[in-house]
Amino acid sequence: MITYQDIQQAYQRIKSEINHTPVMTSRMLNKDLGAEVYFKCENYQRVGAFKFRGAFNAISQLSHEQKKLGVVTHSSGNHAQAVALAASILHIPATIVMPENSPKVKINATQNTYGARVVLCKNTVQSRQETCQRIMENEGQTLIHPYDNDEIIAGAGTAAYELLLEVNDLDIIITPVGGGGLLSGTSIAAKGFNQNCEIYAGEPLNADDAYRSLISGKIQTNKNPITIADGLRTNLCPRTFQIIQNNVNAIVRVSEKEIISAMRFLWERMKLVVEPSSAVPLAALKTGEIEIKDKKIGVILSGGNVDLNAFFEYLSSYIAEK
Amino acid sequence: MITYQDIQQAYQRIKSEINHTPVMTSRMLNKDLGAEVYFKCENYQRVGAFKFRGAFNAISQLSHEQKKLGVVTHSSGNHAQAVALAASILHIPATIVMPENSPKVKINATQNTYGARVVLCKNTVQSRQETCQRIMENEGQTLIHPYDNDEIIAGAGTAAYELLLEVNDLDIIITPVGGGGLLSGTSIAAKGFNQNCEIYAGEPLNADDAYRSLISGKIQTNKNPITIADGLRTNLCPRTFQIIQNNVNAIVRVSEKEIISAMRFLWERMKLVVEPSSAVPLAALKTGEIEIKDKKIGVILSGGNVDLNAFFEYLSSYIAEK
Repeated sequence: MITYQDIQQAYQRIKSEINHTPVMTSRMLNKDLGAEVYFKCENYQRVGAFKFRGAFNAISQLSHEQKKLGVVTHSSGNHAQAVALAASILHIPATIVMPENSPKVKINATQNTYGARVVLCKNTVQSRQETCQRIMENEGQTLIHPYDNDEIIAGAGTAAYELLLEVNDLDIIITPVGGGGLLSGTSIAAKGFNQNCEIYAGEPLNADDAYRSLISGKIQTNKNPITIADGLRTNLCPRTFQIIQNNVNAIVRVSEKEIISAMRFLWERMKLVVEPSSAVPLAALKTGEIEIKDKKIGVILSGGNVDLNAFFEYLSSYIAEK
Repeated sequence: MITYQDIQQAYQRIKSEINHTPVMTSRMLNKDLGAEVYFKCENYQRVGAFKFRGAFNAISQLSHEQKKLGVVTHSSGNHAQAVALAASILHIPATIVMPENSPKVKINATQNTYGARVVLCKNTVQSRQETCQRIMENEGQTLIHPYDNDEIIAGAGTAAYELLLEVNDLDIIITPVGGGGLLSGTSIAAKGFNQNCEIYAGEPLNADDAYRSLISGKIQTNKNPITIADGLRTNLCPRTFQIIQNNVNAIVRVSEKEIISAMRFLWERMKLVVEPSSAVPLAALKTGEIEIKDKKIGVILSGGNVDLNAFFEYLSSYIAEK
């Protein structure tokens, strides 16, 4: 299992390549909650999400031989962009396996902006895994898993570590939980910094595998989860589950309506473009299920990649009408 | 006419009450433009706009007698919120004259969030002015004009001053221009800091009074301007025109389409919720009309108050469908 020292070393390894992201606060929110909340804005990280931290940490440590053969991953989301950019910076070939029904704009961005090769597959877990496996076997590429990977977890933990270097005395840290990489890394960073720091996660009620896993003591899975928080539909793996069992106080579930309401607060009041997954921890704080009165709370805002087509089509229709 | 020292003094006066707003950059934009662009993010200022700087600077300097009688202004936009908040912090009564067709949400925010009195008037310039005049005569309140006021201009200039304290060697500063308060204050701050700094403004083609005023040497006005940049529909006044004539190199006009395209870049790539007016200077830089190659450029992002109803109704319909 990875340690606090792994996260400190990861931070030294990546700190000249990552954005040192800002920490934001809201007077209005602090007044409403009776607490002090510090948002670590990973929507301002490169590729618009914390995922770049882990991807760069993992890929930069491959052997010379591995680097020559390249990396492969399956994702249509932030991890794909993160692997593609990290590989491009390190001059390593990258292959991203994406479902054939992925939006063209995402496929193009991955190919053109970062020069990664995109291989399409069927939109099933099985097809993704088989396609990755085939590429690994035929071409010798190294798989960079989005969360079932110690270096990815250590990299993800550097966001909380960087936050703690700036705000030393947090009583609580909260993140969203999907596959559990961010939550695992954050919990190790926070416990290493201060053993008494409490760790929580917010999770969509509609994809509550981590909540059920923690309660039952056994990994549970989601079956076709439907949630607007598209980054949080994945299941825990044994690696992340073990860390979460050791470190996490509780997981708080939130409805889709609560997610959108928290997201609206972050956009409207705090002027932060964040994706729905990022709003889940704030939604969890607002439920009242965590004792936060007079506490100092760190929130990891995981990313800001959200589809703005509808909004800007609406704005463009505004000028067309005039 | 106000001086660089006035801006420095204004900054000392207000700095403990304002947000020290962050400066953001974009690798992608800098690569595209072949320049270094520094965005001063006044969307993160209190009330979500630079207007709070001027309002607090002006109201805090009123005499004891004036403070007792209170302040009045006419605005349905950021200046209204700024005056209401500044007055509330200073425990001074504030009256905001708003057109009777203002959105209820804006009227409520002004009354409830900041405890200002709202007086409705007809939606004409004449009715606004007459209503203000009547309140001033009957109640002895002091008018806080949104830009035809030296203390407002000095306060507005502190945004550029604060930016220059952080990024000392800017070759160019660019702002939007509406009534000219922000542009005037910015130009005095920048010229005071470095006489060689070039000053530009972006202006909507559909409300190009400042452009025409500068070209013709006489104040020109807009007749029913229709632009999505709702903060920039106002006309210059002699006070701001004189400063702009002295200090500004050129005003660059941009189409509605160019404004929306620049706004989309700021949202999608830089994750900044900004209002359309804030995107006008970036749109101007992108026209190629200003020589920016290899230059260091400061951009004042004026504010982030934008109506997000349509966007969040769309998101809510997404969950309703599932």
